Amino acid sequence: MPRIPITLTTDFGQSDHFVGAMKGVILGIAPDATVVDITHQITPYEIPEAGFTLAQLYRDFPPKTVHVVVVDPGVGTARRPILAQAGGQYFIGPDNGVFSMIYNRETHRVREITSERYFRKPVSPTFHGRDIFAPCAAQLAKGVRPAQFGKLINDYAQTDFEHPVRTGKRFWNGAILKIDHFGNLITNFHVSEFGGIQERPFELVVGPHRIEKLARTFEEVESGETAAIVGSSGYIEIVRRRSSAAKALGCGCGAPVELIQY
Amino acid sequence: MPRIPITLTTDFGQSDHFVGAMKGVILGIAPDATVVDITHQITPYEIPEAGFTLAQLYRDFPPKTVHVVVVDPGVGTARRPILAQAGGQYFIGPDNGVFSMIYNRETHRVREITSERYFRKPVSPTFHGRDIFAPCAAQLAKGVRPAQFGKLINDYAQTDFEHPVRTGKRFWNGAILKIDHFGNLITNFHVSEFGGIQERPFELVVGPHRIEKLARTFEEVESGETAAIVGSSGYIEIVRRRSSAAKALGCGCGAPVELIQY
Amino acid sequence: MPRIPITLTTDFGQSDHFVGAMKGVILGIAPDATVVDITHQITPYEIPEAGFTLAQLYRDFPPKTVHVVVVDPGVGTARRPILAQAGGQYFIGPDNGVFSMIYNRETHRVREITSERYFRKPVSPTFHGRDIFAPCAAQLAKGVRPAQFGKLINDYAQTDFEHPVRTGKRFWNGAILKIDHFGNLITNFHVSEFGGIQERPFELVVGPHRIEKLARTFEEVESGETAAIVGSSGYIEIVRRRSSAAKALGCGCGAPVELIQY
Repeated sequence: MPRIPITLTTDFGQSDHFVGAMKGVILGIAPDATVVDITHQITPYEIPEAGFTLAQLYRDFPPKTVHVVVVDPGVGTARRPILAQAGGQYFIGPDNGVFSMIYNRETHRVREITSERYFRKPVSPTFHGRDIFAPCAAQLAKGVRPAQFGKLINDYAQTDFEHPVRTGKRFWNGAILKIDHFGNLITNFHVSEFGGIQERPFELVVGPHRIEKLARTFEEVESGETAAIVGSSGYIEIVRRRSSAAKALGCGCGAPVELIQY
Repeated sequence: MPRIPITLTTDFGQSDHFVGAMKGVILGIAPDATVVDITHQITPYEIPEAGFTLAQLYRDFPPKTVHVVVVDPGVGTARRPILAQAGGQYFIGPDNGVFSMIYNRETHRVREITSERYFRKPVSPTFHGRDIFAPCAAQLAKGVRPAQFGKLINDYAQTDFEHPVRTGKRFWNGAILKIDHFGNLITNFHVSEFGGIQERPFELVVGPHRIEKLARTFEEVESGETAAIVGSSGYIEIVRRRSSAAKALGCGCGAPVELIQY
Repeated sequence: MPRIPITLTTDFGQSDHFVGAMKGVILGIAPDATVVDITHQITPYEIPEAGFTLAQLYRDFPPKTVHVVVVDPGVGTARRPILAQAGGQYFIGPDNGVFSMIYNRETHRVREITSERYFRKPVSPTFHGRDIFAPCAAQLAKGVRPAQFGKLINDYAQTDFEHPVRTGKRFWNGAILKIDHFGNLITNFHVSEFGGIQERPFELVVGPHRIEKLARTFEEVESGETAAIVGSSGYIEIVRRRSSAAKALGCGCGAPVELIQY
């Protein structure tokens, strides 16, 4: 049997038993699966951050990988568990829009997970990660066909947090999608859409700060200077050299960023 | 050879070489074992927190899983290394009471580990995790029989940190077993013993705070309100909606909680 | 096919997609590899800390293990990617001296990685971890021979951060190599060279503090006392009992430590 990766992206942190319990359930059903921690440090309940993080890496995983996301402020309410098929891979989690960036990138089909025979019983109202998402991911890795989990749906949740809004001929309103470990501010301006900043003057406006320099590498950023850089995933990032731009600019996740192109 | 999970629960944190060294020793002996991080963020030397964490998840793992716990303030002293068999699984760690909640739940047998031929040599006086617990766990996963590690003992350490004490007809003194990543306070009142709070009025008293509401889901907790909830593992938790009850109540691990049932 | 461990040591933290992307690339190429997190919490850009951490544990891993280190302040500049063979294992990372402690311990050969056919394309100028180091590690684990990655070089970077300097008949100047999770200060005085402190009086001087006691175990350190201890990896550590010596002494990574031997 091939070893299928099952990835975990949660806001559970790493100090509790939650992640370990999910791993136990998975290995009990699919002992040959490779459980891969993506991160358990998503800001609690921050659906866009989780969706962005997963969107940056799912294509680096092999076909049939099962990605489980548990950032789930609505756990215990009527929100549905879903299984999405997209790009030859599987995505399991709550139907709260967390897979929107995947839907934007890939032909996809979404099913509501209703087959309780695959659930861990009894299902806790507060821990669907262990009782629904983990066992369904393991069954999928073991070969259960997607159709066996439930029917296709069309009214799944989608939110568009990845596209800046044009507000004038030269003006765009965007946002900070994520602050990374180094304090770099990852914006939702993608170089595929905003490549013009590589050729023409521009300004990125974050609060009272204006960034006008595009650096090709971190080494091109002067000490004490704030610059834009095209990050490894194609998004324009606002950075400082070997220090935190987030601290220097006093700026948080979700903050607005204006782009002016000349 | 089946892939046996070996889980690790420590207070080593994740910034040092300690956890990596244990993984190296395990994979050198049992390359097909699946090493599973439970957590390395147990509060340093907090034996009850480690025991509680493990007790919440061991049953989600398959038979023959080897659970290694290294929360070991007495490392280098005369405290014994032990191997416990319970619930069809194995538990390896120091004999300091960390497995007490397992002993309370399962028929169990406990051995002192004395067979130095399984140890990594020389044995460091400060790192039994690498030199005794990890190699013995790997040998066990590889098929060495429990009896080969040492003789059964009856005088192993046990501490009862999980049961509240009755102090009057309607009064019980309990404690906060753990503060989870979201700041929820996990008490040692279990719904199997204290299910009455689902039917009759009650008060949970933490310092100057009194909680009288039981919510079924987090969505039933109003913004700014503190409520009780039956957590996913059956323990009554004191929670706030999308914020930290620990911060709101100024309350730490081990703090007393009084229950009054009407 | 045997399961080869591929270890990861980075300063990426665990909240971003960087580590997950590297794991995806590895598992896409070598699904049977065992990916092992050593730590992702190296202080950003601290090459000596990463080198020290790896040096403490590589020998605990089995032959042919591939160790990947990504602490890479020069990413995107002309610094070379390298593959070192040492002690029967492989080391992949940037040529910035991070493997110096390995070079000091083992016969070694170092190659510049130039075979772009093994890279993930396009190579991002800021993420060689995903695009160069991870795929080359996976190809190596899969059986590609070292020589296929590039030619041997002799002018690889080496820095000697692990040896104290003698400044007088009885005086040595050393440094804090690392502060561990418990706040213990790990010095670069190794017991193999400075075993005299086990037999004769000595003083360790850190700022205004003088440590004159050598304890055999943590239990021998009195509450409130600061003592030296021979750590599990042979380095002399400055410790306190169940509390942080780093906090008590107000001391950081890289700080000087003087040893006086009588």
